[in-house]
Amino acid sequence: MLRLYFTPHTCALASHIALEQAGAKYELVKIDFAKGEQRSPDYLKVNPKGRVPALVTDRGVLTETPAMLLYICQTHPAANMAPLDDSFALAQAQAFNSYLCSTLHVAHAHRMRGTRWADDPAVIEGMKVSVPQRVGECFQLIEREMLQGPWVMGKDYTICDMYLFTLAQWMESDGVDLSKIPRVVEHRRRMSENPVVKKAIAAELA
Amino acid sequence: MLRLYFTPHTCALASHIALEQAGAKYELVKIDFAKGEQRSPDYLKVNPKGRVPALVTDRGVLTETPAMLLYICQTHPAANMAPLDDSFALAQAQAFNSYLCSTLHVAHAHRMRGTRWADDPAVIEGMKVSVPQRVGECFQLIEREMLQGPWVMGKDYTICDMYLFTLAQWMESDGVDLSKIPRVVEHRRRMSENPVVKKAIAAELA
Repeated sequence: MLRLYFTPHTCALASHIALEQAGAKYELVKIDFAKGEQRSPDYLKVNPKGRVPALVTDRGVLTETPAMLLYICQTHPAANMAPLDDSFALAQAQAFNSYLCSTLHVAHAHRMRGTRWADDPAVIEGMKVSVPQRVGECFQLIEREMLQGPWVMGKDYTICDMYLFTLAQWMESDGVDLSKIPRVVEHRRRMSENPVVKKAIAAELA
Repeated sequence: MLRLYFTPHTCALASHIALEQAGAKYELVKIDFAKGEQRSPDYLKVNPKGRVPALVTDRGVLTETPAMLLYICQTHPAANMAPLDDSFALAQAQAFNSYLCSTLHVAHAHRMRGTRWADDPAVIEGMKVSVPQRVGECFQLIEREMLQGPWVMGKDYTICDMYLFTLAQWMESDGVDLSKIPRVVEHRRRMSENPVVKKAIAAELA
């Protein structure tokens, strides 16, 4: 039995959707950021980084969304959620997910999590100013260069779609100009109607 | 024939070392940041992100270090540079590399690349202040929780070692307190004596 530590409205949703889509046996454990549970001694034993998500397996704990998503795919190959038998296509998928975690998510985090990089309140406040533009540029690059259509990787629905959808939840609160990224918006709409996605979101908010 | 676009003193070194270690057939193309070549029309056709590294293959272009490293491993399995037959261990390796790109490299980039996240010169300047501490904390977490020893993944030398070594090049200029991370420093020393690593560095500086 896998155990996914998550917080609602975070990138943990991507792994949650993947587990649900894979038909994996898993349980959810909610970490309450408002109570600071991500930095509690008990949770730091699970994930010393003090972040979500974390996935407890019978071999140990995994963190970092791109790695967790690949693991879920490889351990549930029948679900066909990544091009596991094609090194180049798999690398494209992993590159997309890596871009989301290291560039898009990071650009977003400058709005709410500036303390990751600064202590001076004026600098933390100043980091928020360019978030709409910088996050918007990331989504425009995805719109223009990466989202092959109808899914990220083309005709096949993969973990890339789950991860993109998850980070696309934040576009409005980041102040992104949606008129410049109609294909990303349409992708999000299609994802939001997927029963597996609906079930995962409902479970997180329950 | 693979083609690696690189710039000296960047994270491209990790993929370069991996190509060399794998015995891959590849050529190097240097992108000169001082001349702004990463944003030239010709290079943007290769990598619309305007960053290095980029790896041109006969199937197309790959970017993002964790994805490129995995691709090099999968296409050169005899080189044994990752636990390709063990999904959990592979996810651990990918999680390590994902942490390097999304957390450690990002913490570092606030010293030299603040324009990625802000336009206000005062904010960009202010971002530099906490770099020694934040980058130091990343390396301390690696020292304490991730570097199994003697190599990152334990007894086996992998792509994680190549990537860690690459980012460890920047510790002094980031102002990291090396006395708190003796195992990372020792790892870097061992890596720097590896003939393959020496050859890759020499080729970049030639």
